[in-house]
Amino acid sequence: MEIKTYIETHKERFLNELFGLIRIPSVSAKIEHKADMESAANYWKQLLLEAGADSASVMPTKGNPVVFAEKIISHQLPTVLVYGHYDVMPAEPFELWHSKPFEPEIRDEKIYARGADDDKGQAFMHAKAFEYLVKTNQLPCNVKFMIEGEEEVGSSSLEAFCIENKEMLKSDIILVSDTGMIAQDIPSITVGLRGLAYMQVEVTGPNRDLHSGIFGGAVANPANVLAKMIGDLINEKGQITIDGFYDDVEILTANERKKINAAPFDLEVYKKALDIEQVKGEDGYTTLERTGIRPTLDVNGMWSGYIQEGTKTVLPSKAYAKISMRLVPHQKPEKIAQLFEAHFQKHAPKSVKIKVEYLHGGDAYSSPTDSIAYLAAEKAYTQTFGKMPIPTRSGGSIPIITTFERVLGVKSVLMGFGLESDAIHSPNENFPLFNFFKGIETIPYFYKYFAEMQKK
Amino acid sequence: MEIKTYIETHKERFLNELFGLIRIPSVSAKIEHKADMESAANYWKQLLLEAGADSASVMPTKGNPVVFAEKIISHQLPTVLVYGHYDVMPAEPFELWHSKPFEPEIRDEKIYARGADDDKGQAFMHAKAFEYLVKTNQLPCNVKFMIEGEEEVGSSSLEAFCIENKEMLKSDIILVSDTGMIAQDIPSITVGLRGLAYMQVEVTGPNRDLHSGIFGGAVANPANVLAKMIGDLINEKGQITIDGFYDDVEILTANERKKINAAPFDLEVYKKALDIEQVKGEDGYTTLERTGIRPTLDVNGMWSGYIQEGTKTVLPSKAYAKISMRLVPHQKPEKIAQLFEAHFQKHAPKSVKIKVEYLHGGDAYSSPTDSIAYLAAEKAYTQTFGKMPIPTRSGGSIPIITTFERVLGVKSVLMGFGLESDAIHSPNENFPLFNFFKGIETIPYFYKYFAEMQKK
Repeated sequence: MEIKTYIETHKERFLNELFGLIRIPSVSAKIEHKADMESAANYWKQLLLEAGADSASVMPTKGNPVVFAEKIISHQLPTVLVYGHYDVMPAEPFELWHSKPFEPEIRDEKIYARGADDDKGQAFMHAKAFEYLVKTNQLPCNVKFMIEGEEEVGSSSLEAFCIENKEMLKSDIILVSDTGMIAQDIPSITVGLRGLAYMQVEVTGPNRDLHSGIFGGAVANPANVLAKMIGDLINEKGQITIDGFYDDVEILTANERKKINAAPFDLEVYKKALDIEQVKGEDGYTTLERTGIRPTLDVNGMWSGYIQEGTKTVLPSKAYAKISMRLVPHQKPEKIAQLFEAHFQKHAPKSVKIKVEYLHGGDAYSSPTDSIAYLAAEKAYTQTFGKMPIPTRSGGSIPIITTFERVLGVKSVLMGFGLESDAIHSPNENFPLFNFFKGIETIPYFYKYFAEMQKK
Repeated sequence: MEIKTYIETHKERFLNELFGLIRIPSVSAKIEHKADMESAANYWKQLLLEAGADSASVMPTKGNPVVFAEKIISHQLPTVLVYGHYDVMPAEPFELWHSKPFEPEIRDEKIYARGADDDKGQAFMHAKAFEYLVKTNQLPCNVKFMIEGEEEVGSSSLEAFCIENKEMLKSDIILVSDTGMIAQDIPSITVGLRGLAYMQVEVTGPNRDLHSGIFGGAVANPANVLAKMIGDLINEKGQITIDGFYDDVEILTANERKKINAAPFDLEVYKKALDIEQVKGEDGYTTLERTGIRPTLDVNGMWSGYIQEGTKTVLPSKAYAKISMRLVPHQKPEKIAQLFEAHFQKHAPKSVKIKVEYLHGGDAYSSPTDSIAYLAAEKAYTQTFGKMPIPTRSGGSIPIITTFERVLGVKSVLMGFGLESDAIHSPNENFPLFNFFKGIETIPYFYKYFAEMQKK
């Protein structure tokens, strides 16, 4: 049976199974969802067993468990290790969702839900591609699955898991769908990912909230101080002012930059989609370069004082910010975190106290475009989309990818089927049915070509 | 009967009555407390009738009602109008309170509760001082009470109320206890109050929250933009950078500044009480000047993005700040609000949209130290504290005081009995029993001396 026919026959069941997974609110950032993490892991175990795995288990870690499953046909054949994650981002702010984040709804040919794309929807495609190959006796290689539950909070238990289970995880390639493609008619393969250093800053002024009339003007206001320090982190040219921040940043050649800018990109369409009058970033770089090859710094959250309706004349005791930096190859998150903290400690006025925490991070990643895995993926896309995919660098991070390379000695191939408009990490996350089914259709070809080429 | 004996006899009842008032969570900033505003107003009406008012009524306004009560002995005698407010500040953050904000508790000889001082506790002293004078047949003048419910949100209905009820509110002096004194053994009378302009700023970047990896570095982050703009509002010298901000600021003479700095003030004690290493403010001014005679700007609240536990790599769509400026005589809040908005509109980068709202404001106030009212208050304090009170300028604002002068043509005398350590507007607001009872003891002497001196 052809994959297209298989999808057509089972599409309703596929969606129902995915919806069951989505309905488990497995938000790894929040402790109250601890039980949901277990439920989601068990759901995956069941999914993989039913799809045709020889064995599947929910393996404990110091954090959330990892689901491992495998089907070994022959030790003579190559092995593909599929990586994905069952945890999702928090869904706040809830009021901006048009339907409930954990009750999937199909509207305009898209699945709307937290995790619809990232990464429940995308990882689920692999379960179904695998199911097709097993059920139709076409599986051309061994397959292993490793589905974790801490990707959205820095995959902090996965490195130890990889070290402890190195033999079990042995494979020839790691296959990941947790990235995007340029457009529905422009397939692409991600060959670069930015690293991440995610920080939290706490500024303490007076030991309690004060009346801003009685004390205002005489006592440092931590909110004003923090705002000033954040403002000073980026200069007029859009450069990050932390000493040493750019030291390890790779300078790309004119030719490399040319390649990046060759990707289809329409600035007017981009601005219109975001409803912004102007883009903003580091001087001297295009938008594709700013998100692909340059490191950045963003406030992800900040809060201080009275933040409800009405007015309160308070001089707050504390002000907080969550600030993350996207890193490029050779920038080490731990070093960047130290430079960040040193910057804050150095520039803080003596009238406040500063506490800086490094919440999580990961290295940047880049992969070659002439490997067997890349060429197999390229061929698979060409088969199903009717055109060659474009290699791209994504601004996002999957910190664990570099760990895989370092610990397991295995490269990854990033076959992402998401779109920029999927609003991952945002309200109204969605995943078009087209992309979902096209993913299931494309993945089996990757197995086919990879097994063929690897054998040669 | 002496006032001291009267207090001793009735102190338990006084506290119970005050506690009943405090238990009504009359938070004017929040719409869900609408019914509590009515309850608090009715509680006051009952209090004043029982204390001996001829009549008392809860009078509707466009906002929360005003309680008006009076006892007219003779049109030949002078009339004192007591002003106070029954609304309180929001009590957030609740988790920092050591006891429930709306369940008063006496610890270490202090009443702990939201409103214990500001202004339930202080206004309540007047009800009891009045009760004493009526019940012991010593009331030397006519008395009117006007207790409003919108002081903490800018008294927005009170000007119209004064205009409509000018005749009813006719009086020789307005008596207010909504300020502080220097220390329990250093009585003081507030002769200056700062004005206020309270603003809210909304910065909009992209039309939805974005993934900070995919868009970070290419799209203006409204949190970074707002932080930068807040940071730039105050320069290295501690001066506010809004064009025209200082245009109408009165320059005090060396002699006036000398007087202000003559007030007892120990910088080391001040810093220790707040647990800060250094004070911070406008260059060239002392702490007393910074809070008394100079205008200031403080962030009262700011928020953007993900502000809960853990991490979320979001590039927020919106960032907000509540920013208020304390003003000095001659600075007009409406004009300052316009300058503030113009500043934000002018300096905002084109990559974001800015919305500025003027939430509320009020003029600064200053009063003479040679008026009959001042002299009567001075004599009253001297009687009960055994020493002359010091005239001080407070950093706080009671916006309505200047409106009274303009609309009713009547000056106010500010007999405040609060302490800086009362933590008004903060968690664990409190009011020492000493100050509470000393207030009830002192107020009747004001009536006595004011009536005597006014007659001459």
